[in-house]
Amino acid sequence: MVVLQLSGPAPVNLQAKFSILELAHGSRKHLTTLSSFSLPSLFISNSQQPRHPISSFPPVNESVAAIVFGDGSESRLYPLTKRRSEGAIPIGAKYRIVDAVISNCINSNINKIYALTQYNSTSLNSHLSRAYTGLGLGKDGFVEVIAAYQSLEDQGWFQGTADAIRRCLWVLEEYQVSEFLVLPGHHLYRMDYQKLVDAHRRSQADITIAALNSTRDQDPGFGTLKVNSLNEVAEFHVKSEREPMIVPSVQGVQASNDNSYRKLSSMGIYLVNRDVMTKLLNEYFPQANEFGTEVIPGAISTGMKVQAYAFDGYWEDMRSIAAFYEANMECIKGLNMGYNFYDKDAPLYTTPRYLPPTTITGAVITDSVVGDGCILNRCKIKGTVVGMRTTIGEKAIIEDSVIMGSDIYQKDYIQKSGKEGMAIPIGIGEDTHIKKAIIDKNARIGRNVMVCTI
Amino acid sequence: MVVLQLSGPAPVNLQAKFSILELAHGSRKHLTTLSSFSLPSLFISNSQQPRHPISSFPPVNESVAAIVFGDGSESRLYPLTKRRSEGAIPIGAKYRIVDAVISNCINSNINKIYALTQYNSTSLNSHLSRAYTGLGLGKDGFVEVIAAYQSLEDQGWFQGTADAIRRCLWVLEEYQVSEFLVLPGHHLYRMDYQKLVDAHRRSQADITIAALNSTRDQDPGFGTLKVNSLNEVAEFHVKSEREPMIVPSVQGVQASNDNSYRKLSSMGIYLVNRDVMTKLLNEYFPQANEFGTEVIPGAISTGMKVQAYAFDGYWEDMRSIAAFYEANMECIKGLNMGYNFYDKDAPLYTTPRYLPPTTITGAVITDSVVGDGCILNRCKIKGTVVGMRTTIGEKAIIEDSVIMGSDIYQKDYIQKSGKEGMAIPIGIGEDTHIKKAIIDKNARIGRNVMVCTI
Amino acid sequence: MVVLQLSGPAPVNLQAKFSILELAHGSRKHLTTLSSFSLPSLFISNSQQPRHPISSFPPVNESVAAIVFGDGSESRLYPLTKRRSEGAIPIGAKYRIVDAVISNCINSNINKIYALTQYNSTSLNSHLSRAYTGLGLGKDGFVEVIAAYQSLEDQGWFQGTADAIRRCLWVLEEYQVSEFLVLPGHHLYRMDYQKLVDAHRRSQADITIAALNSTRDQDPGFGTLKVNSLNEVAEFHVKSEREPMIVPSVQGVQASNDNSYRKLSSMGIYLVNRDVMTKLLNEYFPQANEFGTEVIPGAISTGMKVQAYAFDGYWEDMRSIAAFYEANMECIKGLNMGYNFYDKDAPLYTTPRYLPPTTITGAVITDSVVGDGCILNRCKIKGTVVGMRTTIGEKAIIEDSVIMGSDIYQKDYIQKSGKEGMAIPIGIGEDTHIKKAIIDKNARIGRNVMVCTI
Amino acid sequence: MVVLQLSGPAPVNLQAKFSILELAHGSRKHLTTLSSFSLPSLFISNSQQPRHPISSFPPVNESVAAIVFGDGSESRLYPLTKRRSEGAIPIGAKYRIVDAVISNCINSNINKIYALTQYNSTSLNSHLSRAYTGLGLGKDGFVEVIAAYQSLEDQGWFQGTADAIRRCLWVLEEYQVSEFLVLPGHHLYRMDYQKLVDAHRRSQADITIAALNSTRDQDPGFGTLKVNSLNEVAEFHVKSEREPMIVPSVQGVQASNDNSYRKLSSMGIYLVNRDVMTKLLNEYFPQANEFGTEVIPGAISTGMKVQAYAFDGYWEDMRSIAAFYEANMECIKGLNMGYNFYDKDAPLYTTPRYLPPTTITGAVITDSVVGDGCILNRCKIKGTVVGMRTTIGEKAIIEDSVIMGSDIYQKDYIQKSGKEGMAIPIGIGEDTHIKKAIIDKNARIGRNVMVCTI
Repeated sequence: MVVLQLSGPAPVNLQAKFSILELAHGSRKHLTTLSSFSLPSLFISNSQQPRHPISSFPPVNESVAAIVFGDGSESRLYPLTKRRSEGAIPIGAKYRIVDAVISNCINSNINKIYALTQYNSTSLNSHLSRAYTGLGLGKDGFVEVIAAYQSLEDQGWFQGTADAIRRCLWVLEEYQVSEFLVLPGHHLYRMDYQKLVDAHRRSQADITIAALNSTRDQDPGFGTLKVNSLNEVAEFHVKSEREPMIVPSVQGVQASNDNSYRKLSSMGIYLVNRDVMTKLLNEYFPQANEFGTEVIPGAISTGMKVQAYAFDGYWEDMRSIAAFYEANMECIKGLNMGYNFYDKDAPLYTTPRYLPPTTITGAVITDSVVGDGCILNRCKIKGTVVGMRTTIGEKAIIEDSVIMGSDIYQKDYIQKSGKEGMAIPIGIGEDTHIKKAIIDKNARIGRNVMVCTI
Repeated sequence: MVVLQLSGPAPVNLQAKFSILELAHGSRKHLTTLSSFSLPSLFISNSQQPRHPISSFPPVNESVAAIVFGDGSESRLYPLTKRRSEGAIPIGAKYRIVDAVISNCINSNINKIYALTQYNSTSLNSHLSRAYTGLGLGKDGFVEVIAAYQSLEDQGWFQGTADAIRRCLWVLEEYQVSEFLVLPGHHLYRMDYQKLVDAHRRSQADITIAALNSTRDQDPGFGTLKVNSLNEVAEFHVKSEREPMIVPSVQGVQASNDNSYRKLSSMGIYLVNRDVMTKLLNEYFPQANEFGTEVIPGAISTGMKVQAYAFDGYWEDMRSIAAFYEANMECIKGLNMGYNFYDKDAPLYTTPRYLPPTTITGAVITDSVVGDGCILNRCKIKGTVVGMRTTIGEKAIIEDSVIMGSDIYQKDYIQKSGKEGMAIPIGIGEDTHIKKAIIDKNARIGRNVMVCTI
Repeated sequence: MVVLQLSGPAPVNLQAKFSILELAHGSRKHLTTLSSFSLPSLFISNSQQPRHPISSFPPVNESVAAIVFGDGSESRLYPLTKRRSEGAIPIGAKYRIVDAVISNCINSNINKIYALTQYNSTSLNSHLSRAYTGLGLGKDGFVEVIAAYQSLEDQGWFQGTADAIRRCLWVLEEYQVSEFLVLPGHHLYRMDYQKLVDAHRRSQADITIAALNSTRDQDPGFGTLKVNSLNEVAEFHVKSEREPMIVPSVQGVQASNDNSYRKLSSMGIYLVNRDVMTKLLNEYFPQANEFGTEVIPGAISTGMKVQAYAFDGYWEDMRSIAAFYEANMECIKGLNMGYNFYDKDAPLYTTPRYLPPTTITGAVITDSVVGDGCILNRCKIKGTVVGMRTTIGEKAIIEDSVIMGSDIYQKDYIQKSGKEGMAIPIGIGEDTHIKKAIIDKNARIGRNVMVCTI
Repeated sequence: MVVLQLSGPAPVNLQAKFSILELAHGSRKHLTTLSSFSLPSLFISNSQQPRHPISSFPPVNESVAAIVFGDGSESRLYPLTKRRSEGAIPIGAKYRIVDAVISNCINSNINKIYALTQYNSTSLNSHLSRAYTGLGLGKDGFVEVIAAYQSLEDQGWFQGTADAIRRCLWVLEEYQVSEFLVLPGHHLYRMDYQKLVDAHRRSQADITIAALNSTRDQDPGFGTLKVNSLNEVAEFHVKSEREPMIVPSVQGVQASNDNSYRKLSSMGIYLVNRDVMTKLLNEYFPQANEFGTEVIPGAISTGMKVQAYAFDGYWEDMRSIAAFYEANMECIKGLNMGYNFYDKDAPLYTTPRYLPPTTITGAVITDSVVGDGCILNRCKIKGTVVGMRTTIGEKAIIEDSVIMGSDIYQKDYIQKSGKEGMAIPIGIGEDTHIKKAIIDKNARIGRNVMVCTI
């Protein structure tokens, strides 16, 4: 018996013989054709018609795929990452951190979303598959988790972001997109990626990097860009662990002292043309492990056209427990918040749930948000994020805290096991006082407990 | 050209000729086979095995279809039914009335659910299709709305519940269920219909009627049953609009003065064997319009085996605005409520939504429930059901009320149109006082308004 | 107790008093704002940027809602419409007629789809809810059936297409779309409605009518247009049942004999601005029942800007059984067909099914299509559409026919009831010869039957 | 700031102090309560009621979770596993191997399905998330992939089936099931697992092993059981790679020569009580890597009650390319097949697709199955599985082969690139002859090619 096998997209020719060169040539021609749409002639000459040029760029839902990194670092938010990847940490009373980036994609009409993960990937996989499959992602839309895997060719884990993309390229290339949008999954911000894509296509860049004004005190840690007035990247300063590095762009060398240049901090968000991605990972830097600190500087040094896209809105990464706490505190600022949870046209998506409304037998609540299905019994709540299904006992006082809530109700448990007198139910007990604390999901805090930071 | 057409299930014989009799005989035999499972021999004789008889009744998800009436009466809850059928009226901060019955079905593992409707059917159709399609209803499960329709045979609207079922029988018979469960859609209660089905099958009844102890002051208006100690219906008192009627059962006549008999009030819930349904509607009472007041008494009078199934839990119909108000007030009773909104094992389902958590800049809340996505600004809320997306202005006081909430946010609207100074946004304005009121969805109540009942 | 009720979008003011005029004024201003996006200024002046004007029209998935009429005529395809609306008739081995139009919408990124129906609406409702809810329709996307319904204001059925839209306007206006796309649901064609929308917006029309070159022998029966070189409609010839009518446009009167004008046949497809729709139905022609023959000519006569959009592709309505047969025959033409069933980028959607592959124990098949899950036993099939789950017996010959297939398998039935010897199973028996016939779903055709048209 | 963190279900007591012992005791008591339902007293004493004992076992959809291993061996089906796990290999024209086991679960009402995987897990994850999320899995139902992951505690890959379950136990214990059903994912068979569960519960076993009569020539390689007339396992012969081992059960030792004993071959299918699973993996054999060859023999040796469940139906593993070929050949046997693809009551599920019907311009087909969306041009097909979207050119002859089909159409490609004359399109070219071959997905076989096994 004969087995003819070919899972990849490469053509197998049983009739004639190609040289590898010809094949490569063919694929290059193909890519040329693909990218040709970025030079449209848009002016309609019919003088009878009002001059309404229509975009001839393809819509992003057919032409851009997002690659979201779900992991971040396991250590900086520890112990919140003990069982979860960073992206799966609960935030804002009912969300997970990764929801912000996934919702950005959906609200930007990008509906092909790959989430790459290997660290505590189960938590992320479970969340994403429950949250985003019921949701209408439109024609050919999906949120697909690619967990690190073994194959005959490669037995190891992903060695970094560049390695992860490289090993998954054969999957990522399933759809004929023209650009990949690389996104860290644990940042909190709202961005319409469509504008980023538009800017990228207009400037005919190979790569566009979203970046913050580096005058801001937030440094995402993805390096610093020096850009000219056309937003072309002239220099890239990498803060590698090993040694800091300054990468001048080919075009930008001579001009680097020009004071018309401004500094931006890379957000770790890269829009990369499909063919450029393949070349960078497989041809130019096949050994590079990290995308931001190895591949991007490399691309600049080889003369590729790298643009910056300046972003000015609210942005928060979760570099520390303190930063995570602050991000939660954004929720309680009402209409004055930096991160808007209430944008009707760009909702923040998450797992839909069938929770009852919150029952309040009595509460004085100020400057707080309260998730669904809570049971609040004659307590005081101030400046606090109260996560879904939180139960708070009588006379408890909660201040300036993040209560993540619970996955289940334990009312029955309380009542049934009441006679045993000992078991602590999930939730916050009577007369307990919590101040400036982060209480993880499903925590059991008994009566008359003090959890305070002075 | 020849057109051979046959949409119904009736066999067309192009070869031999059947008499109608033979066909009927065939189908009767079929029905006998079907109902034979209700006489299982359950004792396992293998003496080596512990005696664990296993039910040989088919599981309800394969053998029972629910027929839910979505309409109720258009008049008794008017004006809440101006644009909606009764089943679609919002209740309990985030539900619609019909959700209680549909959730009962799902929680009882009945997943073939037909909702018959014609009065303001759009509201019900829209709600049911959004709420119950994302939900996993299991293999071959569905909630399907059958709106009144015209056909060549019948140009009119449904003339009543019996007429509606009769005209839809060809659809209802799509799956080979053995019983139909007829359910009014606008009652609030929790019932495990599986127990009703079990009781029905054990007693080998043709019809089983769920009924309340008539000593309760609630009378659903579906007639009164006199039953013996075996729960067999001996007499049925119909409160028809035209004339009251007493229908003795064939078996029960002589015993009707026996004081071992007790009285029950029919809840309008009928479990009817499939073949019995067909016979009653098409053969015995082809002119009957109403199921409860015409067909059921008819069935009893013709000697069918009709059982009662007594129900003792919380039950509320919505016979008046006052009753609807009281049903809402059930929600705020916390753990002491008659209708439990918090049963983890039997959740109340409804449309899943992507709403942010409720933001409270300041509120003193007692004995209330609060839905998702509200914005509560330094107000007082007491004994109130606050529906999703409700916005309440500063210093407003809401007492003993039902606020249905809103379908959209109008924050943007508030801010943008602020300069115009006149438009009233959706929600409840500052300094407004509402007491003992039902505020419908999307109502716009300005500042400093008094809406009180003394 | 007070009941404050307001289901409509109209503001209720409990504080100040508006005159109706002010309210109307307010809403007109709102509409002006809405339509202002159709006059974008698109030229980017930044000389540093390459001149790539980007469309500032809103994407159609947020700005256009489709209104599909599911019914067509009950009589012209009778008896295929005995139990079904026209839209629900099976076509092309696995589709329903309405799938062509719904798929056009989805493939054109229009994802807000209302299907209006009243004639045998159950069939359409059932099909649409099964086919299009699992499908990703994207953010805020839906296919929602609006069956004719009774309300306190209106007890009757829809009196025609205009009446149907008028009575449903309050539902249709749920989303802030800028145009409604009115579509007959029983036509077979492929059209990218986005191009129609683009043309409409560029020409700043009030209404745009899609139309065929009237030199084609197909006349959809929606009237004839005379258009100038700018595609402006100068004259509209209505073929009303009562009396033919020529409606000159205000602008077009003087020019109507100009031979630069060309004739087009309306396809019954209308793109209508939201505010124009409301005015036409509620203000200008509140008594009109039919959209194509009353409202559209009316709009032209009142001087609205009405454009034509010429369409040249394959198009077929189902005006007769013969036309329906021919439309089916399109499927079997392989790559030469007028209607392309195989367009990967614009698939034809329908109910997803879990059918096994077709089993062929032996068959000689020419110029045919075969649906899923058929069982073909040593038969000959020529020029035939073989619908899903069709069973064909040994030595059967099927020529030039449309076999709609079956909803269920009857293999078990065959085997189990074999001994009874009489019942005809669903499918086509042995030695049977079918030629030029349309065999409806679930038909039972025995052995040795001749069904031929000479 | 204080961080109180607890992702596991273990109670944290901030008030009183428990010893670990007490906690363990508490959980044991809990388990006792849980398992108490397996000893129900089922006899209804009410003499008025007919004696119809109803099963008091909980329904399997609430009480059993399946653990499916998606990987199998990477080597024995190589090269079909080059890019895929074994479970993701296409079979039967439109399925993947794992569909058989997942469909068994769904058809047995087991709807909590965890798929554990690490080898080429992307293929399996992608398939399972596309195939089983649109499908109604019922209340709390899911198919969830758990890919191998890194955590702070454990940086390595799964070391075997026992290690995989052990590391995922915290996830698997999310729902309060009473038994875990461990299933190899790459076997082809139909089994109603509910019967296995019933037998297990009646016999009050700790573990039940499904097993084939070992007289069959198929040996799944999971060891051999010697069982007595009560199906109690008396001896277990492990064929470990290192050394064969005979494990007598505590009860069974003395009787092992009794000739009333019969031999069965374990199918690698284990039903294990929840508490037994935890004890075996964490307490008794915390170092064991393999479930079948280490944990199960261990359980027997420690005196646990281990039962066998004999299975007699069609069963095929995929131990070799030849076995995989034979399994495919099952499809083409029509009604005589061992594995029934056409069971209406227990369908084989897979990804729902929107493919057009198969177009046949001409074909002589015998003893074959043909998937959806094929294009067959005047070819001969005999004894072949023709996978979906297969294109076969004119005069091609395909015999006794498995053609897996294609993920995309290339018609456009053919036509557009026709002028280039060289590229081989996906599919099978004209005049090509294929005999006894397995052609993988998306293979490109040119014109006039011979792929034959003599």
